[in-house]
Formats: sequence, C-alpha cells, structure tokens
Amino acid sequence: MILTVTPNPALDVTWHVDRLRVGDTHRADAGAVRAGGKGLNVARVAHAEGAAVRAITTAGGRTGEEFAEELGRSGVPHALVRVGQDTRRSIAIVDEALGDTTVINERGLTPSDQEWADLLAAVVDALPSARVLVISGSLPPGAPDGFVPLLIAVAKDAGLPVIVDTSGPALLRAADAGASVLKPNRAELAEATGILDPLDGARALIERGAELVLLSLGAVGMLAVTASGLVHARLDQPLSGNPTGAGDAAVAACAVLYAEGERDPEVILRRATAWSAAAVLMPLAGDISPQWPAIAARLRVSHPDSDSVRKDLS
Amino acid sequence: MILTVTPNPALDVTWHVDRLRVGDTHRADAGAVRAGGKGLNVARVAHAEGAAVRAITTAGGRTGEEFAEELGRSGVPHALVRVGQDTRRSIAIVDEALGDTTVINERGLTPSDQEWADLLAAVVDALPSARVLVISGSLPPGAPDGFVPLLIAVAKDAGLPVIVDTSGPALLRAADAGASVLKPNRAELAEATGILDPLDGARALIERGAELVLLSLGAVGMLAVTASGLVHARLDQPLSGNPTGAGDAAVAACAVLYAEGERDPEVILRRATAWSAAAVLMPLAGDISPQWPAIAARLRVSHPDSDSVRKDLS
Repeated sequence: MILTVTPNPALDVTWHVDRLRVGDTHRADAGAVRAGGKGLNVARVAHAEGAAVRAITTAGGRTGEEFAEELGRSGVPHALVRVGQDTRRSIAIVDEALGDTTVINERGLTPSDQEWADLLAAVVDALPSARVLVISGSLPPGAPDGFVPLLIAVAKDAGLPVIVDTSGPALLRAADAGASVLKPNRAELAEATGILDPLDGARALIERGAELVLLSLGAVGMLAVTASGLVHARLDQPLSGNPTGAGDAAVAACAVLYAEGERDPEVILRRATAWSAAAVLMPLAGDISPQWPAIAARLRVSHPDSDSVRKDLS
Repeated sequence: MILTVTPNPALDVTWHVDRLRVGDTHRADAGAVRAGGKGLNVARVAHAEGAAVRAITTAGGRTGEEFAEELGRSGVPHALVRVGQDTRRSIAIVDEALGDTTVINERGLTPSDQEWADLLAAVVDALPSARVLVISGSLPPGAPDGFVPLLIAVAKDAGLPVIVDTSGPALLRAADAGASVLKPNRAELAEATGILDPLDGARALIERGAELVLLSLGAVGMLAVTASGLVHARLDQPLSGNPTGAGDAAVAACAVLYAEGERDPEVILRRATAWSAAAVLMPLAGDISPQWPAIAARLRVSHPDSDSVRKDLS
C-alpha cells in the first residue's frame, strides 16, 4: 500500500468565467469543490491506476466537512485527522477564453501540538501495511521543523522508502533525514538550496542524504539525478494543457514503482515523465489520461553528461 | 418596522491579495464571510442607524448555514426561509495595491414553487408590523414573473409603500405594479426600458405607475424624478472608495424616511445621497460612515430643468 501524507490540505473550489478581467464583475455557475492537496492528488492517480493507497490528511470546520464529503465520494481510501481550525481553501478561476487559471491559496492555520501528534500517530498506525511513504505539499504555518524528518525516521525504521515533494527548508530537512526520493522543480530547488545551477542543486540534495532527485523541468521533461549518474526524459513534442498536478502524477508513478520494489532510476523516470505528461491532458489535478502508455512510447530518454544537460537547460 | 426582502441572497466571501494578476498563483489569509444581498445591506444600514428592521431572505445547504451564522452574529433582526439548494456565493478578490475588486457572482439556483410560496408567506406574516416594504436585488434564475408584482400587491393591500431596487424585466413589472419608489442606476434604467436618455427612462417608469424614481448617477450624485418635477443632489467633490453597497445605503435612507411618513422628494434625495456617499467611505457593503451628517452638509441640491440635467449627464 502507498501511504500518502498531506500536512496542509485545501478545499479546492473552481469557478469558470468567459474572460477574467481584474476589477470587473463576472457571472459563473456554482464553484466545483474538490478535496485538494498534493498527497491527495498522488493517492488519486495511484488509486485510479490500480495501486493500493491510503491518504492521510487533516480536516476541520465547515470546509473540512465539505472536504471529507468529497473525499468520501472519490472512493480513495483515506484517514482524516480532525483538527480544530477550518481546512483552508484554494480557489481557482479559469478563464475559458484564454485557458489561464488564476489561483488564490489561503495560507492555512497552525495545528495544535496535539493535532501534529495525532497526524503522526495516524501515519505510524498505517505504516505496518505500507510499502512506501509519500509526504507531499507545503506545511501549514507554524509547523514544527522536526515534523518531516520525524515522519521520514519512523518510515525508515519500519524499512520503508520515503518520497518527499515539498519546498523551502523542509526540502533540505528531508534530504538531511535521508529521504529516498525528492521531486523539486527548478525554482523550488534553487530556492531551497540557494544554488542556481539545477545539476549542482540536485547533487547537493544527494550529498545531504537523498538517493534520487527527480527534477521536473516542465516542457523540457524530467531529470533523474543519483550519486552515480543522470537520466533525462522528454517528450518528442511538449503537450499543452493544465500543468497543475503534473508533479503529483510523477510522484504517483514513482510511488507505484517503489511499492513494487522497482529502484532503477531510468524505469522510474520514464513512468514519472509519462504520467506527468498524461496529467497535463486532464482538466483536474489528480487525474491522468488513460492514453499514458502511448505518451510513454513517445519519450526520448538519454544518459547525458552534465555539460550537455546544462546546455539543454540554459 | 422596515421589512426587506432579498430573493437572491449570496454568501459573500472576500480575499485580499497584494496584486491580482490573471494566470498567477497568490497567497491570502482566509476569506472573510458575510451574509450578502442587497436587501440585507439595506437592513444592516437602517438597523445601524437605529431604525426597526426585519430582513427576510432564503438560506440553503452548507453555504446557507454559514450565511445564517453570520447573519445571526450581525444582530440584524431577520427571518430565513429554508430552501433545498445551496445559497449561492459571491466571491470578491481585492487587489490591495490598486484597490480594484474583482467579483464573481454565482448565478444561483431556482427555488421550488413551495419555496417561493414560503418566501411570500414569510413576507405576508411580517406585513402587519411593517411601515414599508423593500424588495432588493436580482431574482434567482427561473423566478416566476409574477413574484415581485405579487409582493407589491400584498404590501399595497396592507397600506404599505414599496421600494424596489432591481433590474431587467422585474424593474418594469415593479413600475407596472405601482411600486412607490424605484432606484435604478443609469445602466439598469436604459437596459430595462430600452430608452437611452435617463430622464425619459425615469419618466417612463413614472408613467407605468411608480411615484418616485431615485436615479443613482455615481460621481454625479442622484436625481429624484416624480410626475411633477426633478431634484438633483451631488457632493461638492466626489469621494473615492468602495462603491459596492452605495445604492443599498440610498435605499436604506429612503426606507427610513418612508417608514417615518416622510414623502418630500428633496428630503429623501438629500438623505439618500448622503448615505450613499457615506457608504463609499466604508470597506464593506452594508455599512455607512458615521460622518454622514457632515457629508449631507456638503450637498449641492438644485431643481433643474430637463435640459440642464441632460447637459450635466451627457
């Protein structure tokens, strides 16, 4: 079973307007509601592709009730830790003419010490039946510095690999704690490490203790960086669509393969890149196109040296 | 007591961002929630100014619960007719740098025949203690054509004046049904009557059966049009601020004076223009600045002829 933890979930509410103009008044149908958060997207994708999953997150207040209802309808196995504060909202306004999406993420509120302990306990309870732990997304304000390292430690003690997709100082702490896989994009990597060169940044995470860095590069595909080498995968032609959730689909691919015992960076990179591209074709984060095997067949995979990668990325 | 009816209420949710850019992702504190709708704004303003009020509207679903809670906290006396469908939302995103507000109004859902009957019954029940009926705002999709005329008829049967602030065909129907006061803005007047000249449009409403048309003109103030003449009021200098709810404050002023038996168009126009301007100074619709008497002292009031008004408005 793939166990995902989402420390900072959000109730996603999406409205569609013909054309979004700042300062104007628009009419729209009722907003569509979805239980959001990167770990939930990972669980949705893996579940839809037939993997056993369990998504653990928090829910509180009236938005938490809506969140729990929608997650219940989704059929994704999950456990919700009740918290006192309202689950935050993430609102999205889709401009139908241009296809642009404007997003406002509420910052979220700080869980209590007891709530952090409850979330940790929910993960610990689920570890015995898990094959891999996925920690995804931002942390709420006021999160204890030691939370992500503690989750990694308990999973490693149970013999499980840990995949972490987060940003900021938590990304460095995850590397220090020996996360198996990290999946930053270029901006997150540069911001967390302070290193502008993406290869040097990825290698800094490996030196700190990570096994594999999956560096997502948008239209340029994805790079797998390990202590022993590089693999680069990209599509023959980039796809246009909705990039939200593409990184989560990559993490889902990685988690499914890790749960099956697969550790070959190239195999993981191929699946992660294909699922990521297949997510771009879908309107909602957490879904991938069933056409992904055809996309996988269009991948160009190479084992480049550092200089040619740097040239590609510059 | 001033009785207000709001057939198409909304749960207003407002977020503040530094700078709203279409297509970008923004961070914000949790959205602030308020029970919204033009008749509720009228009731809030009149209540804050010491008038006896009762606000009648509908509430349904989870957004309806939030709506009811916030309205309860406001202290405004009210009665909520329960409906099966979720109360719609109106979302506002305030750009803190520019002061612009971008609004998305959900269209709302159609109440059932029974729910329309319940809303009418709630109004009829409250009529005996009312001095004036105010019908404010849009109608939900699928509203019966006869709903506003029926409300006007039952109020007139009870000997009450009726103030209507709505748009589209409902504005014409209100005039035909003999509403005492109508308060369109220029765009609403032109759209409903098909007459571009605002004086001719206002006079068309009077000919249909209205006693007084308060025509709001934004920075140019307000015009009171009756069968016998014109009064124009404007500030010495326009105020800058938040125009949302300015028209509702004008209606509140008119309702307070009508409830006191006042019928002089100039007295009503002065108070309506002052409260409308005092609303512009406040961040939230439904509030007016306590400085309104000072604003009233700055009004320039004239009894112009039609030609000079047309020149002013062109």
